Amino acid sequence: MTYCVGMRLHAGLVFLSDSRTNAGVDHIGTFRKMSVYEQRDDRVMVLMTAGNLSISQSVRELLNTYTDAQGLSVWNAPNMYEAARILGETVRLVNQRDAKALSGFGIDFNVSLIFGGQIGNERCRLFQIYAAGNFIEAHDENTYFQIGEAKYGKPIIDRVVNPDTSLDDAAKCALISMDSTLRSNISVGLPLDLLVYETGSLKVDRFAIIDEKNPYFQMIRSSWGQQLKNVFEGIEAPDWEPHNDASQTETPGQHQPVRVTPPAIS
Amino acid sequence: MTYCVGMRLHAGLVFLSDSRTNAGVDHIGTFRKMSVYEQRDDRVMVLMTAGNLSISQSVRELLNTYTDAQGLSVWNAPNMYEAARILGETVRLVNQRDAKALSGFGIDFNVSLIFGGQIGNERCRLFQIYAAGNFIEAHDENTYFQIGEAKYGKPIIDRVVNPDTSLDDAAKCALISMDSTLRSNISVGLPLDLLVYETGSLKVDRFAIIDEKNPYFQMIRSSWGQQLKNVFEGIEAPDWEPHNDASQTETPGQHQPVRVTPPAIS
Repeated sequence: MTYCVGMRLHAGLVFLSDSRTNAGVDHIGTFRKMSVYEQRDDRVMVLMTAGNLSISQSVRELLNTYTDAQGLSVWNAPNMYEAARILGETVRLVNQRDAKALSGFGIDFNVSLIFGGQIGNERCRLFQIYAAGNFIEAHDENTYFQIGEAKYGKPIIDRVVNPDTSLDDAAKCALISMDSTLRSNISVGLPLDLLVYETGSLKVDRFAIIDEKNPYFQMIRSSWGQQLKNVFEGIEAPDWEPHNDASQTETPGQHQPVRVTPPAIS
Repeated sequence: MTYCVGMRLHAGLVFLSDSRTNAGVDHIGTFRKMSVYEQRDDRVMVLMTAGNLSISQSVRELLNTYTDAQGLSVWNAPNMYEAARILGETVRLVNQRDAKALSGFGIDFNVSLIFGGQIGNERCRLFQIYAAGNFIEAHDENTYFQIGEAKYGKPIIDRVVNPDTSLDDAAKCALISMDSTLRSNISVGLPLDLLVYETGSLKVDRFAIIDEKNPYFQMIRSSWGQQLKNVFEGIEAPDWEPHNDASQTETPGQHQPVRVTPPAIS
């Protein structure tokens, strides 16, 4: 499996991906799932992939050279919407080529993509592209996308991130979200690719490969876990004693469960 | 969907279940998923169910009256292992009766159960029962089971709970785990059934139905979220500046992403 998260903030974009692949527990691999398409001062686009690795790799390869009937490619698309559409077309090309043969082996055409960036003066945009080549865009009400093993790391993002979150805080949150996922699911693994893009810069200048020796990620892993435990211990325990105070009528201990009683002996 | 969690600690057992069911977004219901089988001073058993509601309800109903060929029922089983086996048999009975007809409508025989308790002088035991009627037991190395929408609420349990955790702390953790799930997944909903069983008591004396007015759950929801944000803000931001210090070679900002460069113009 995989865990990738992309966030679209007013300040820019944050992308984080793991690098574990598995085709069964006896076939674990490390493949980086983030690719950067950069033309300085013109466009920066970032692609993250989840799903069948052969499909993901073909999409990434085709995207680089694909030109549609109007001569548009990701390298000259006038805006990110058109670039996402072109990416969707390459997914459909791979589908036409591979889906039937895969299906013959009982394998679904399974791929999902996060694609975001900035072209020229347009604002930063972030898309999620599905296996059918259709796609949706992130907006202020839904400011991030996740692909792969998304659920473990979702609560912390829901609690912390909004469109006004700073890039540093968003990167920190993405790493905590990844840490929660790494701890709970063995199919997601280090190293991580982290890319932070600042609106208007039109170049990649904050990128890191994070492995188990990375001091910042080590600090996050240990201090987040420890401080979470401290907060946990600081929250008072439930009070099971009955209260006479009317305001406390919803206190634990005064309800009846759904009881199943033994059948009468006939 | 559903979220239920059961924990087996040295001090006893904790059970927590939500009550939302849905058969499509236009068909949301409230059904309690926890049932208590209690014979004071002899046995306390708790069943939580996830999956197809008609199957769950039939299993619950049958379990009360089912007696196997040796005359054993949950009411006279000599230990929890035998009680879990009897529960598995009732799942198989429902399967024999309903699975083929459901299959004709393209509906899987989908049910999963958490079943735990104490019989006589035996230790507290906790089981997870599958749709095939087979089951596994919790031990110190794997001290809890979840059914339904398990992933959102798993990280906090993994970080906090171990066999020596007190019943109050385990109940607190289960409620935080539920809160994370409620925030991230609309198919899980209030009210909650919370039951805390103390080893050796052989009666149910700590049970609560928790709805949105419950002051303890309100406190957990607000203070956990707020303190999580405080901890988050207290963790330092990543440092993207290059360092000359050799010990800092893994600091962000010094790596290269997987770059895709534009194809050469022919």
